[in-house]
Formats: sequence, C-alpha cells, structure tokens
Amino acid sequence: MNLLDNIDDPADVRKLARHQLTPLAHELRHYLLDSVSKTGGHLSSNLGTVELTVALHYVFNTPYDRIVWDVGHQTYSHKILTGRRKQMHTLRQMDGISGFPRRVESEYDTFGTAHSSTSISAALGMAQAAKIKGEHRHAIAVIGDGSMTAGMAFEALNNAGVQEDLNLLVILNDNDMSISPPVGALNRYLARLMSGQFYAAAKNVGKSVLPAPVLELAKRFEEHAKGMVVPATMFEEFGFNYIGPIDGHDLESLIPTLENIKKLKGPQFLHVVTKKGQGYKLAEAEPILYHGTPKFNPAEGIKPSATPAKITYTEVFGNWLCDMAKQDKRLVGITPAMREGSGMVRFEKENPDRYFDVGIAEQHAVTFGAGLACEGLKPVVAIYSTFLQRAYDQLIHDVALQNLDVTFALDRAGLVGADGATHAGNYDLAYLRCIPNMVVMAPSDENECRQMLTTGYHYEGPAAVRYPRGAGIGAAIAPALTTIEIGKGEVKRQGKKIAILAFGSMVAPSLGAAEQLDATVANMRFVKPLDVELVKLLAATHDVLVTVEEGCIMGGAGAAVAEALANEAIVKPVLMLGLPDKFIDHGDPAKLLSLAGLDANGIAASIKARFGTLPAGSDEPRLVVNNG
Amino acid sequence: MNLLDNIDDPADVRKLARHQLTPLAHELRHYLLDSVSKTGGHLSSNLGTVELTVALHYVFNTPYDRIVWDVGHQTYSHKILTGRRKQMHTLRQMDGISGFPRRVESEYDTFGTAHSSTSISAALGMAQAAKIKGEHRHAIAVIGDGSMTAGMAFEALNNAGVQEDLNLLVILNDNDMSISPPVGALNRYLARLMSGQFYAAAKNVGKSVLPAPVLELAKRFEEHAKGMVVPATMFEEFGFNYIGPIDGHDLESLIPTLENIKKLKGPQFLHVVTKKGQGYKLAEAEPILYHGTPKFNPAEGIKPSATPAKITYTEVFGNWLCDMAKQDKRLVGITPAMREGSGMVRFEKENPDRYFDVGIAEQHAVTFGAGLACEGLKPVVAIYSTFLQRAYDQLIHDVALQNLDVTFALDRAGLVGADGATHAGNYDLAYLRCIPNMVVMAPSDENECRQMLTTGYHYEGPAAVRYPRGAGIGAAIAPALTTIEIGKGEVKRQGKKIAILAFGSMVAPSLGAAEQLDATVANMRFVKPLDVELVKLLAATHDVLVTVEEGCIMGGAGAAVAEALANEAIVKPVLMLGLPDKFIDHGDPAKLLSLAGLDANGIAASIKARFGTLPAGSDEPRLVVNNG
Repeated sequence: MNLLDNIDDPADVRKLARHQLTPLAHELRHYLLDSVSKTGGHLSSNLGTVELTVALHYVFNTPYDRIVWDVGHQTYSHKILTGRRKQMHTLRQMDGISGFPRRVESEYDTFGTAHSSTSISAALGMAQAAKIKGEHRHAIAVIGDGSMTAGMAFEALNNAGVQEDLNLLVILNDNDMSISPPVGALNRYLARLMSGQFYAAAKNVGKSVLPAPVLELAKRFEEHAKGMVVPATMFEEFGFNYIGPIDGHDLESLIPTLENIKKLKGPQFLHVVTKKGQGYKLAEAEPILYHGTPKFNPAEGIKPSATPAKITYTEVFGNWLCDMAKQDKRLVGITPAMREGSGMVRFEKENPDRYFDVGIAEQHAVTFGAGLACEGLKPVVAIYSTFLQRAYDQLIHDVALQNLDVTFALDRAGLVGADGATHAGNYDLAYLRCIPNMVVMAPSDENECRQMLTTGYHYEGPAAVRYPRGAGIGAAIAPALTTIEIGKGEVKRQGKKIAILAFGSMVAPSLGAAEQLDATVANMRFVKPLDVELVKLLAATHDVLVTVEEGCIMGGAGAAVAEALANEAIVKPVLMLGLPDKFIDHGDPAKLLSLAGLDANGIAASIKARFGTLPAGSDEPRLVVNNG
Repeated sequence: MNLLDNIDDPADVRKLARHQLTPLAHELRHYLLDSVSKTGGHLSSNLGTVELTVALHYVFNTPYDRIVWDVGHQTYSHKILTGRRKQMHTLRQMDGISGFPRRVESEYDTFGTAHSSTSISAALGMAQAAKIKGEHRHAIAVIGDGSMTAGMAFEALNNAGVQEDLNLLVILNDNDMSISPPVGALNRYLARLMSGQFYAAAKNVGKSVLPAPVLELAKRFEEHAKGMVVPATMFEEFGFNYIGPIDGHDLESLIPTLENIKKLKGPQFLHVVTKKGQGYKLAEAEPILYHGTPKFNPAEGIKPSATPAKITYTEVFGNWLCDMAKQDKRLVGITPAMREGSGMVRFEKENPDRYFDVGIAEQHAVTFGAGLACEGLKPVVAIYSTFLQRAYDQLIHDVALQNLDVTFALDRAGLVGADGATHAGNYDLAYLRCIPNMVVMAPSDENECRQMLTTGYHYEGPAAVRYPRGAGIGAAIAPALTTIEIGKGEVKRQGKKIAILAFGSMVAPSLGAAEQLDATVANMRFVKPLDVELVKLLAATHDVLVTVEEGCIMGGAGAAVAEALANEAIVKPVLMLGLPDKFIDHGDPAKLLSLAGLDANGIAASIKARFGTLPAGSDEPRLVVNNG
C-alpha cells in the first residue's frame, strides 16, 4: 500500500505519474476487498469501478468538477480516495460513514444518491447552474446500465440532449446488470452495441471491403441517410456525442479518452464496459451473491451460515407467493428489478410465465399491474416501501382510482438499518392511508404476514401489506392460506387503565412494555380501514390510549386513531409513539429502534413519562394529563 | 348528420362502407366543434383525433380489442362513437360524462387516463393478460408525442420491446406538441423522422441513384450495418416494428395501414402525424388557446372576456415569479410542460435563460431543481398538486433528505372541478406533511399567497405553497415582496367557546360559519411546521376545536392538530372537517365544496351537529360530547 497510504485527497492522485495509476488501482482493489470483507457492504459494484474512479479523479479537477454517482453504492473507491480511507472500517455502522455518497459527509459527494437513476438530472442541474453562473466546471453523471432503464434517466437525457452548450458528461457504466440480471430492450441494445463494436467499426469494415469509387458512393449514401435519420446510436439521436464502448478496467484507455472528452463542448456520452466483481474471482463468478455481502473471509468467500437463520419476512412473502400461485392460476408476480431482494427467485423458477421483472421501473411496474388487473388477472407487485414512493401517482391514479385488484407486498417498511435514511420505509402509512379505496395492513408476526397477504390477495381492490426488513419474532407459520377479517384488530393482552394500540412490528415490544405497566395491548392489524369499533371499546374501558407504530408519527397510524376518536366524538388522552420527524441515519436497526424509544423499555418509559408511574396492576393510576 | 345519427355503437361504424367513413369523420368533427363550444372542454386535441378514432373502431373489434387512450382528453370522438353522443352536452358537468375515459362509464373505456404516459404500461398489461389467458385480442395504446417524453412511457417501451409474442400496438399520435410547445431531444428526433420521410424513403432514394452492382454492394453494406447495430429508428432499437409516419387525417392511409398491422405479430409501433385543431381554422392557428376552451361561438371563436376576470392564484404566482426574478438573479423557474397552466408565459418572455420547460417529466423536473440548488441557484418548481405525485420520491430522496433549497408552487390544490378525480389536489397535505424538513403553507387569500411564496423562497430548504384552482376572495395584493414568520398563524376573528382552525382556502368560509356561531377563527397558514403555540392558546381558551381544510382528512392538517394536541398532552373535543375518503367526480367546484360541507353553511352545520346549537354569544354552550 505504498501509494494508497499517501492518498488523502484526489489532488494526491493527480500528483502521481501515469504509470503509477495501475499499481494504485491494484492497491485500491486490495484495500476494498479487505475492508468490505470486514464490515460487509456492497462489493461487486465497487470492484467494478476501481479504475473508473481513479481515472475520473485523475483527469478531472474534483471537487470543482462535479461527479454524481448514480445509486451511489459503487463509491467506496471514491470515498477511499477522497480522504475517508481511515473511516472505511466504520462503513454503514452507526455514526460511521455511509454506504452512499452524502453531501454532509464530504465536499466530494456532490449529490446524495441511493435510489437509482437520479444522476443525470442532478448533473444537468449542476451543468446548467455552471452556465448561468459563468463557471467552467464539468458535471459528470456515472450511471449503470440497470439505472438507465428507469424513466427518470430517459427524461433527463431527453432534456439534456438539446442543451448544446453545457459541460455535461454522462458515463454509462455498462456491467450488464443491475442487482438482478438484466432485462428489457435497452439492455439488449447495449449488448448489441458491445458485441458489434459499433457503427464506426462497421464503417471501417465497409471501407476495407469496398473499392474506392463504390466507397465514395457508399459514403454519400451514408451521409445522406445519416443527415436524414440514422445517427450511429440511440444516444446520438438524443443529442449526445457518443464515445465508446471502452474497457473500463484499462486505465490506458480510460484516461486518454476522458482527457479528450474534457476538451469537447456539449453533452458527451461515454460508454464504459466494466465487470461487476472485477479482480476477485468469486465475485466475478457470482456478482449477485457478492452484491451486498456480510462479513466474510476473502480467502474462502461467503459461506452459507452453519446454523439456519430465522426466516425473514422476505422469505415469508416468497413462500406465500409460490403457494398462492399454485392455488390460483390468475396470480402474476411483478418486480422492478429486485428478484433477490424481494424473495422471488423460487417464484420465477416455478412460474416463469407469470413472473415479470420489468427493470428498474417502478412507475411502469404498478401500471403494468393495473393493466393485468383490468383483464381479470391478479397481480402482486413486490416492492420496497421506499421504492413505492417512485410509483405514488400510478398507485393513486391508475390503481386506486379505478379500484383495481392489485396486491402490494411492501418490504423494508420502517427502519432499514445499514442502508440508512435513503431507504427508510417510514412514510408509507402516511402516504398510503390518504388514498381512497386502499387497504393497508401491518403484520405483527410472520404468520400474520402470510394471512394478510392472503387477505389482501382475495380483497378485490388495492391492498398493501407492509412488513419490516429481516426476521420477525419467530412465530410458527401455518401452511394453510387463510384470511383475516378486513378492518378487525384483536386484543393480545388485557390490562388496565392503559390501552396500547400497536401496529405491525410494534406489537411485540408493546407487549413487553405492557408487562411493566399492566396495560392492554391491541394488535390493530389494519391501518386502513381502522378497527373503529375496537378503538371505541378500548377508549370506553381505559383511561388513556397509546398508539405505537414503526413509521412516521405525522399522518401515520396514530393519526388515524386520533381521527377516529374525533369522528366518534370521543375525548381521551392519547399518546402517539412512532418515528420522529427527521431523517434517521444508518445503523443497527435494533439500536435505532431503541434510540427512537420503540423497544419495550422505551415504550414503557414514554408511557410513564406522560401518564405517570403506574404500578403494575394498580387500580389508581396517577394520570398527569394537561386538560388545556 | 345522416351517418352519425345512426351510430350508437362502433359496430354501427363497422357496418358502413369504406367510402362513407370520410363523410362520417366530417360529421363527427362538426358535431365535436358544436358540442364543445356549448360545454367547454378540450378542443384542439379532439379535432386532431377524429379520423384516427374512426379508423381504430372500424378496423379493430372494440371493445374486445382494447384501446387505451393516453391522457384521454382526446377521446370525445371515441365517446360519441361508443354510445355517448347524446350525453355530450353533459360533458365535465356534475353527474354528466367525464372529459376522460373512465372504466365505470363505458366498456369501451378500457383504462381510465388523465395523467399522461400511462397507456403503454396499461396496454402491455392487457396484452400480456391476453397471452396468459390464451385470448387473441389486440391491445392498443394511443399516445401523443408530448406524453412520450415522460419516463414512464420509456419504461414501458423498454419492457414491451422484448416481449416478442404480444399483440401490442403503440400508436404515436405525433402532433408536435403537448399543451405547451414541444421541447426535448425526442421531439427533435421525431421532427427529423417526419421531415426526412425516414430511412425507408432514404433507402429508396439510394436505390434510384445507385447503379445495379453498386446497389448490391450498398445493400450488403446496409445489411451488415443493420445486423450489427443500426436499425431504422429508435423504436426499432427498442424491439418494435416501426411503421410510418402516415397522415393521421387521411383515412385512405390509416385504414389499410391498420388492417395490415392487425395481421402482424409482436410489438408494433405506428407513427401517425396529426394536427391539433384540424379542420377548425382558429384552433389550427392557436392550438394552445383552444386546448381547453370555455363556451364560445364557433363562428367567432374565443373572445377575450369584456369584464376583466378576477385574478387567479395562477396569475398571482406568475406575477410573483417575475417580480422575484427581478430582485434575485439566482431564481430559476422550472415547469414540466405546463407553461400556460402554471402561469409562466410572461416569466419565460422576461427570463428566457432562467426558464426551463423540461417536458412532461415531473421526476426530472424536481431532481434537476435539486441539482441547480446544489450550486446555489434558487429553483422554483411550478407544478400542479396532482402532478407532484409523479415526483414524490424525488421530493423525499433528492430534495428533502438533502434539505435543498427548492421552492414548490403547487397549483390546483384541493378540488379542481371539471377535470375531476384524476386531477384532484386532495392528498398533498398528507403526503407532504410526513416528509422531514418540509415547510408546507396554504394561503387564505391572494396577498398571503404572494407572501408565502416569498417566505418559501427565502427559506433555505424545501418549501411548498399549495393554492387552489381559479380565483380567490379578491384580496388586494401588496406589491412588496414581504415574508411572514414561519410557523405562525393568526387569529382572524375572536369568538367564544368554539375555535375554528382553518387552513388556506377554508379560512373564508370558516369566517362565514363563525358569524353564525360567534366562533373564533384562526388562519393557521402553516400545515408544517404547525403553530403549536397558537393551538395551545386556542385549546386553553375555548371549549372545542374545529379544523377545516380543503384536502383529505386522513393524515391532513386536522390530523396535524390532533398530533400536536396529543404531543402537548391536551385533551379537547376536536371536530375535523375536510374532504371525505373517496374519489370525488367532476363538477362545479363551488357545488362540490358545498356538497362536502366545506362552505360557510356546511361548516356551521357540521359544528352544530357535533356540538349542539350554540346561540351566538352565548356563554353557556350546550356541548354534546361523548367522552367514550
């Protein structure tokens, strides 16, 4: 690590001689593998961008020139070269550095990313700002071929291509995959670009074959055709100057190309081909396995854990989907490029004709589902809570407004841990609840998750089941596909004075809290329609109500209870517990929940702080209630 | 109207002889103009699709074959031919037919549309369902060139192009505009396709020029090049069979082409060129003016109204934007293809370098704004409340999470009248309020709207001002650009017992209600941050609180008040008034508000119904409160 040890800033990279860059990249790759194997994190994508990162910081004047990394999980090399080498051991841990670029973390992180396909829009904004301000900086978006399938990237290309005087460079990092294997026409087109070595090459072949006079004619024909219609690539049709594809692991190719591009005016498009997992054989062979890794021994690779892990909610969904598909031929499963993350690997294997990976295209995923539902099929859209934000209008305008029968399986609802604020599924209860016709459920355990999926599936309208990341409480899962009554909660523990109305993942810690307080606990099950009868009963038989949810308090399930109380003209002390009105950084999920006061002790403490100390079983609670 | 009078179903169209179709189209156009001039509605787009509509219903077996009309405001001919001719006089009026296709209205309306760019996704879903079910129906998406700029359409193309065995037909209705003039690279490309008459034509030209042996070589070269990389058009690169462009007003061209296409397998793409306003000179000359029309005399055209109308909120915004731009060179204005609707015509004229119409591309609009804000410019994104749903994730992930200084001017918040449920701006308070860092304001009058825009603009973070469609109460507007204190409401009327906490457009009717009840009225101004001190004061000095908002109750401003009360441990009777949890159809906005109980009498009646009759000024209100 002779070279890397002395790199504390990209300016240090720029001081190196050209011939030192390849050794630097070698050290960097080694450092990366070592570091990620100790902390866990994204590996395949980062091994693929080592040379590109070195080349960009070498050629461009960062941070004056702006690099926007799409998705951002491939920025570990960038972090190491921009002064964060010594913090890599804190990666994705509480108070450590983020797994994504963050503006608050470094001036080199010009734009925070994590959700895909935002980089061209942001870089275009920066390039446009430079023009308005009379600055000559470059704005560079580095975007993967997976991210290019999202409509937002297309919107930005469409807008950028007509802005002829901007210093905008889009680098397509083409590694032939997003997290899941590649799908869609664009990907097929890129593969054709690669295998064919392009029109330029084709022209050269043409030239060597044709005799001189014919060549002249062919050239005239070509110019004619080109002037009329047919530029070399789709990206040129969008107004970009297309360069590539070049080998993204070859610094001798990358650096001269980038240096040339730096001199050109107008929107430039560089097509770079890289390999996910490059330089680490195991990751090259299985890039999906090494996409996001736990800690592992680089000499051995990732090993299946010896003790079987508790079943995750993702697996509960995946199993349910296969079982329900066996029972009902109308079922179709849709994923926006998250086959693995959403637990649909087995479903695809068993039902290839009813499995649709539509690419990173959440908007299309939802409305495609709506179209299927119009014809009497029963689509299940599996999507992370945070990514459904991408299809919010489609959910309202295409599904709910027409009351179409689409079931949404929302994974990663609530806090997500290491991925942090960008991936938080904290807002779904608020943003779903306000939509007419929606049924919104939150399971308290794995078995109820399965029941709710069945319930939502049989409900002939839009229904969402939102469940947390990771494993649940370890409840036994009944194999039968049973439903629960829509809009009905249940009392899990009968206590006194205090009624805790708990939603989803908060039922378990609420039960823990209730033991300390002898409180009643209801598993509310439905955020919408709320079990108003149960709310009324609990209000009539208790002195105070406490709502608990793993989601933002603002507009969430607690607000639903308050609305029901107001609507029923019930006046009761209410305490609402949930996630605070701020973005919550990455960290251990249990620890984060505890910090938010959403474990058993935290819930009990909040109740005590509001309503006074209630000795368990006391008949005379000391209620400290401000009546205004 | 000899022919049209006998068309009660597309089957009647299919009974006509080919030579009768042109006269039918003529009658249809006449009927359309006559009808829309009496009801108001979308005119230009409908005049442009007369022949295409006739041809589609003639060639395809509707409703077994599915037509999905993108945006759907061009479906009046479709409505007339599918049994709704005699209801056209009720268009866009309460209990009348909708201005858009609706599944509940007709079996011929296979998919409800209104927001743009959903049609390919929906039609692909239908085509895929037909395949799964073994049905041989065709699924057809008719989409304008404006709608094609939205990323969602691209996502659907990307997904559709690889499904080689589907009966999917995408018809690009290329009229060289969305509502605003065309922008972006795709449009430029389409113009090139049109002017050049395509590669096919170019090939023919080539053939006539080249001598035979050279032609043979050229052909081999062409095949080589084509096999390698370069198909004729971008749409072929996406895996579609591209046909066109053809004249969309020439039935002799449309019908044979559609009949041929009907026999082909796999994704087909037909490029049809039409003219907005076709056949009505005034609309042809000014398609934007005749995009959405009031009632008018077809012989005279639309005349400027003699008495100047009250200034609309849209104009308040437009004027503010120009004034603020004069004062601050950092201001940039962004619109997703709604220059006219958002009141930005003058701004563009005065500030062409700071005006950005990004096309129908809400996602990009917001993140482009985020990029500009990163560089210290001050973007103002003008967007309808309903369309911000399209950029929800971008608002959370790109703007709010990074606390970037972007100001959102949300027009058409609340009920929108004739456009109906698809355009309702009912959800914004709920979906905005749950986002950390947001400031959310709702003005009670035009002057306050200007103040709030100034306030949001100076606030160094994401801020939204949501204002209703149309004119306000007619308040005098102070020319100065003044701010109000963030998070501070004001008491507009001091009364007794009852405190009405009114938001935005509901302040005026609340004052009317308060006169009947001698209630206090607060203009809360901020939905976020809520003026908690004012809530506390009102709670301490009144017996009951009433919240009133023009938005969904679920998760809205009333819920914010309930959360604040719970957080402050205040126990008070609360009545929440707002829009009910259902989709509200089109109709006169004042009438719709009245039906929702949101005019002065309705608000007073709701308060009386809940809390009993309170004689004005009485010191002893009879409170009918159920304490659970």
